[in-house]
Amino acid sequence: MTTISVDLMGGDHGPKVIIPGAALALKRHPSIRFQLYGLEDDCLAILDQHPALKAASEFYNCEMAIQMDAKPSQALRKGRKRSTMWQAIEAVKSGKADVCISAGNTGALMAMSKFCLRTMPNIERPAIAAIWPTLRGESIVLDVGATLDADAQQLLDFALMGAAMARVLFGIDKPTVGLLNIGVEEIKGQEEVKEAGLMLKDLDLTGLHYAGFVEGDDLGKGTVDVVVTEGFAGNIALKTAEGTARQIGEYLRAAMSTTIMAKIGYLFARKAFARLRQKMDPSRVNGGVFLGLNGVVIKSHGGASENGFAAAVEMGFDMSRNGLREKIESDLEQYYARGPETISEEAISPEVISPKTASVEANVDQDEAK
Amino acid sequence: MTTISVDLMGGDHGPKVIIPGAALALKRHPSIRFQLYGLEDDCLAILDQHPALKAASEFYNCEMAIQMDAKPSQALRKGRKRSTMWQAIEAVKSGKADVCISAGNTGALMAMSKFCLRTMPNIERPAIAAIWPTLRGESIVLDVGATLDADAQQLLDFALMGAAMARVLFGIDKPTVGLLNIGVEEIKGQEEVKEAGLMLKDLDLTGLHYAGFVEGDDLGKGTVDVVVTEGFAGNIALKTAEGTARQIGEYLRAAMSTTIMAKIGYLFARKAFARLRQKMDPSRVNGGVFLGLNGVVIKSHGGASENGFAAAVEMGFDMSRNGLREKIESDLEQYYARGPETISEEAISPEVISPKTASVEANVDQDEAK
Repeated sequence: MTTISVDLMGGDHGPKVIIPGAALALKRHPSIRFQLYGLEDDCLAILDQHPALKAASEFYNCEMAIQMDAKPSQALRKGRKRSTMWQAIEAVKSGKADVCISAGNTGALMAMSKFCLRTMPNIERPAIAAIWPTLRGESIVLDVGATLDADAQQLLDFALMGAAMARVLFGIDKPTVGLLNIGVEEIKGQEEVKEAGLMLKDLDLTGLHYAGFVEGDDLGKGTVDVVVTEGFAGNIALKTAEGTARQIGEYLRAAMSTTIMAKIGYLFARKAFARLRQKMDPSRVNGGVFLGLNGVVIKSHGGASENGFAAAVEMGFDMSRNGLREKIESDLEQYYARGPETISEEAISPEVISPKTASVEANVDQDEAK
Repeated sequence: MTTISVDLMGGDHGPKVIIPGAALALKRHPSIRFQLYGLEDDCLAILDQHPALKAASEFYNCEMAIQMDAKPSQALRKGRKRSTMWQAIEAVKSGKADVCISAGNTGALMAMSKFCLRTMPNIERPAIAAIWPTLRGESIVLDVGATLDADAQQLLDFALMGAAMARVLFGIDKPTVGLLNIGVEEIKGQEEVKEAGLMLKDLDLTGLHYAGFVEGDDLGKGTVDVVVTEGFAGNIALKTAEGTARQIGEYLRAAMSTTIMAKIGYLFARKAFARLRQKMDPSRVNGGVFLGLNGVVIKSHGGASENGFAAAVEMGFDMSRNGLREKIESDLEQYYARGPETISEEAISPEVISPKTASVEANVDQDEAK
């Protein structure tokens, strides 16, 4: 049985969307049990409208909710112990719940999760993993915003954790892992990425196949199952893809409404357009998974619909059923038992003219700026 | 009169595409004069087929061409002085040409351009600026791959240079400039970006309006005229957008060919689809502009068509006619005459819990991973 703790107060619409979303997930997976954390006055009337969910849940009334615009440090100071967000996370720590889901403020959720659950042994910094729809299906991309400027060892940790998640989520034995870089040859890119590449190449890991560097356009292609990057570039890639999808959606809308012929064509093809819209719908895969903590926490999009929130709950259910946390722990243990690799200095910097020449190796094809 | 030096041997198709491309640009702008650098055996027969271009050009036979896969250091060692690429760049240095255009290897072109032209006074590192089609029109994004891990001062230099380019290219007096970051509040993001933001806010520059931080999804929206970032994230954003556009193009193609109704709809709307394809065509805006060197060099996409290469030539023509280099020089002079700003330590790091807390402030909305 999987128990999921839910912060009812997060997100742009709070319990009005979260409660029906959780009810929807329960309808699809009747075995889920819930621990719900909310403010009584805002939640109980809505919960009464969902008797099946009410029957499958325990409701805990909390003193306060974290605001969507609260600074993480402030949220921690004011909301520790007392807030719905904290208590939902703490349910995972105490073992009352297997996974925690919140649609609240990402920074606050990450700060509280780290503070409450702590990072796994050997893991210095957590990562946020996103599911990326691709032409081949789906990939996992991490980190998309938790750890800026990750070093080589941290990137390697992300690779291990992302691969464990891919095994759980996609049901494959040995997922392919790529490092996001700005060129595929080994001499290119950031030092940390190059070093992580050398470390991964030298390792013979049972749980992943290291496929080398990938570039930004490989994300949409689905070249590898897991794309590893530090949080700044990962977050920018994520939001750039989202923005580009919206932009093309606008172009398409405009193109289909300019002439009578186009409008007629649209009418004929409207089912195909509906399928396309569904394919581009961000709520289809909703949920950023915090990895590297002693417990799984999932961030649902703040603006998610009921369906979107249900998708995040279902992802949590999947992760828990398939033992994500245990798989990550055992992979990390196996890797760290052999001791971290050491890479010789010469191996790290082949063909270096000056400390900064990585940049002149930049492989940019400019008009790719469609 | 504008003279453009062209490396005929660059690109995936070499002179077979470059020469007709230059001829096309000449047809549109008959006042352009060309300095053409190539290998006689590969070029002269093709040039003979374009008498107007031949009449408007001087052809220089060179000893060698830089391979598309040559490493920059190797290209510099073997191709200095002797290669078509080097001599096309040198034509700008010696004043024989106003702008140099090559579809060759980006890394080699940047390395040679830096070595031959040197950076402008006060500029430590060059940037590559790309034109980004947006819902509002076009923006300039820099750097997209020349300078990894730029510091705050370098980001500020990029802002000045990008704004000068926007004035030239878009004909606006005071373009808006944004810094690419992972959240819009001042406390978020990389230290360098935060510091550059504080520096730009304090400056009162005549040639640009600093608009604050922007995120990945602002690129497609066209929120600002100029988006400034370091080269790693910039390159990844560029290629991610390209990949997403291709991915959605595939989805669209698939959707329009599944059912008879969709196919009929496609037939009615085919002109609208053609317009959409044109809008998404990367060759429409072709040309990465190297900024910060004593001379303007433009990188055309290696795979560009004749039309694409002509677009790069026309961009060079525009830049030269409108005095891009002089505008950048005068802006930098004006800025550096007042001495670089100093920012107090407290101003740089408000609300910092630990040196790395920037990360927990990460503003990631996960399901944005459409």
